[in-house]
Amino acid sequence: MTDILGFAAQGRKQPLGPWRFARRALRADDVQIDIKYCGVCHSDLHQIDDDWGIAFYPLVPGHEIIGIVSAVGPKAVRFKVGDRVGVGCMVDSCQACDPCAKGLEQYCESLPVYTYAARDRHDGSPTYGGYSEKIVVTEKFVVRVPETLDLAGAAPLLCAGVTTWSPLRHWKVGPGSRVGVIGLGGLGHMALKLAKALGAEATLFTRSPGKEADARRLGAEQVVLSTDPAQMKAVANRFDLIIDTVPNDHDVNPYLPTLALDGTLVLVGFVGQGKDALSTVPLVFGRRSVAGSIIGGIRETQEMLDFCGKHGIHADIETIRMQDINDAYQRMTKSDVKYRFVIDMASLAA
Amino acid sequence: MTDILGFAAQGRKQPLGPWRFARRALRADDVQIDIKYCGVCHSDLHQIDDDWGIAFYPLVPGHEIIGIVSAVGPKAVRFKVGDRVGVGCMVDSCQACDPCAKGLEQYCESLPVYTYAARDRHDGSPTYGGYSEKIVVTEKFVVRVPETLDLAGAAPLLCAGVTTWSPLRHWKVGPGSRVGVIGLGGLGHMALKLAKALGAEATLFTRSPGKEADARRLGAEQVVLSTDPAQMKAVANRFDLIIDTVPNDHDVNPYLPTLALDGTLVLVGFVGQGKDALSTVPLVFGRRSVAGSIIGGIRETQEMLDFCGKHGIHADIETIRMQDINDAYQRMTKSDVKYRFVIDMASLAA
Repeated sequence: MTDILGFAAQGRKQPLGPWRFARRALRADDVQIDIKYCGVCHSDLHQIDDDWGIAFYPLVPGHEIIGIVSAVGPKAVRFKVGDRVGVGCMVDSCQACDPCAKGLEQYCESLPVYTYAARDRHDGSPTYGGYSEKIVVTEKFVVRVPETLDLAGAAPLLCAGVTTWSPLRHWKVGPGSRVGVIGLGGLGHMALKLAKALGAEATLFTRSPGKEADARRLGAEQVVLSTDPAQMKAVANRFDLIIDTVPNDHDVNPYLPTLALDGTLVLVGFVGQGKDALSTVPLVFGRRSVAGSIIGGIRETQEMLDFCGKHGIHADIETIRMQDINDAYQRMTKSDVKYRFVIDMASLAA
Repeated sequence: MTDILGFAAQGRKQPLGPWRFARRALRADDVQIDIKYCGVCHSDLHQIDDDWGIAFYPLVPGHEIIGIVSAVGPKAVRFKVGDRVGVGCMVDSCQACDPCAKGLEQYCESLPVYTYAARDRHDGSPTYGGYSEKIVVTEKFVVRVPETLDLAGAAPLLCAGVTTWSPLRHWKVGPGSRVGVIGLGGLGHMALKLAKALGAEATLFTRSPGKEADARRLGAEQVVLSTDPAQMKAVANRFDLIIDTVPNDHDVNPYLPTLALDGTLVLVGFVGQGKDALSTVPLVFGRRSVAGSIIGGIRETQEMLDFCGKHGIHADIETIRMQDINDAYQRMTKSDVKYRFVIDMASLAA
């Protein structure tokens, strides 16, 4: 057990502040990682505010973790000290159910063990996330960061990247595909980059006319102002897949007619009870689907990182000090970030 | 032009009564069919009541048409006088768009020409359905009825059959699949028979405990009382596909957790604006989908008829006289039919 420094919320909706806590001693298949960077995800704030009713405190957020291996357990064979690695939203799963067998640990029937605000499967201890100096994780849930990637810019790939990558791959997006992306934030900007790199035609739906130039820079061939019915009508029957990254409740009905025959709108941002009922008309008259998707499995996280390494894809980030996290949350809530905050963990020692 | 006898509604929500009208003279690729039987679909009543806002009058319903070819146009090559044939919900489509090119005329981007309450693509004349002596249809939209099928029992296959067949095939149901069916009416009883014949394990969801014996006779291995939370919980994560045949607005949320990872609930009965908002939680945490589907293309209608011919599958029907149609609608509204009314058109001459 090593006592380390992190930043924690001591209760619901409390600001984050320094907190010392213990990481477990290395188990046989564990890897210890010195954390260099950690991305700031909207769900960190959802958890601090206990929006999903599952949080407990002290809560150390952070699940876009990039670092360097600093120790390995005696049976850990995949990594060695000095390796560049990442940890995403999960640190374990049952490894026995069908989804786990398929490498889809994010859908583990016993629920995966999330990187923070969850309980270790072996000793029931709380998991604490990446807003900290070090983390200890079974090597099965550690991924390799290609040498071609910048460590800070790679951090958001662990959640924002794989959350958009997984549906792009599951729904077989490639050359000739037409992909719509709703919302230009951390997830949305990754969805544009990845869809374009996969050879698809990417379109951004946004309520903000000011986002057009940036969307085009990020890979959108087209920007549709979702508040303009004429622009929405002009893209009727167009998209094979729409990735809906909006993190709050919103009405998906206006987007459904823009799906092509057999098209799918996949929700990756909002988790909860909506208030707008669906019309079944665009579903029935176009065999369209509304689906959901959450993060991605470990295998596809590695696949995504390797793809990003090959194509030189990073998140667009603004690096902050750990001490600035509470201000960063305020800015994030106002969408005042292009497009992801990443904490430089060297600041913890400052 | 031949003056023939049919049954029509002369206005919204009016009872049906005898009406004489003209069928067009045969075009080059047309087939004239002497109608022997016509199934009674719930949408016939929706249209008489103008529930979808697209009806016009006089309205001759009927789109589960079985008959014998009595004349063919000079360029009609697929059928000859005396052939046993069927006509379903469509009598034409643009034949130029992507869905038509794929044999999915039901999703024609210009909308298919429905068998009644629509307009002919060539001369704009109203289409009149199968509650009549004869019909004239381009041969592309006529299907062959296998010799092994009883004509009356085959009639509902043209709508209730293919409406459930199409999603079973699209979502690749076969041996090992687990299929749920919501509602045991005209569509539901066909869904059970077809799912079972395809090798799947079929389960009926119903609010009526009294339907269990019949559901098992029709092919269900299991019956789940959807009003009983314990029974619903016992089938969590179970179904690859749920075919939701309920013709009226209803809440689909309770069914979503019973879908397996990547499972789909497909609505084939209710077309309209629902009043219950979706929770995205079961969608996101299981990559589940809510989709819609409408009838089926001509190619898959023929495929379904051939499959039914091979497996001896008919609808369970109650044959009625044309003159009894208004009473039949009253009984249908109360679900008092096992499971489809079929009009014996010989009664028209009586």
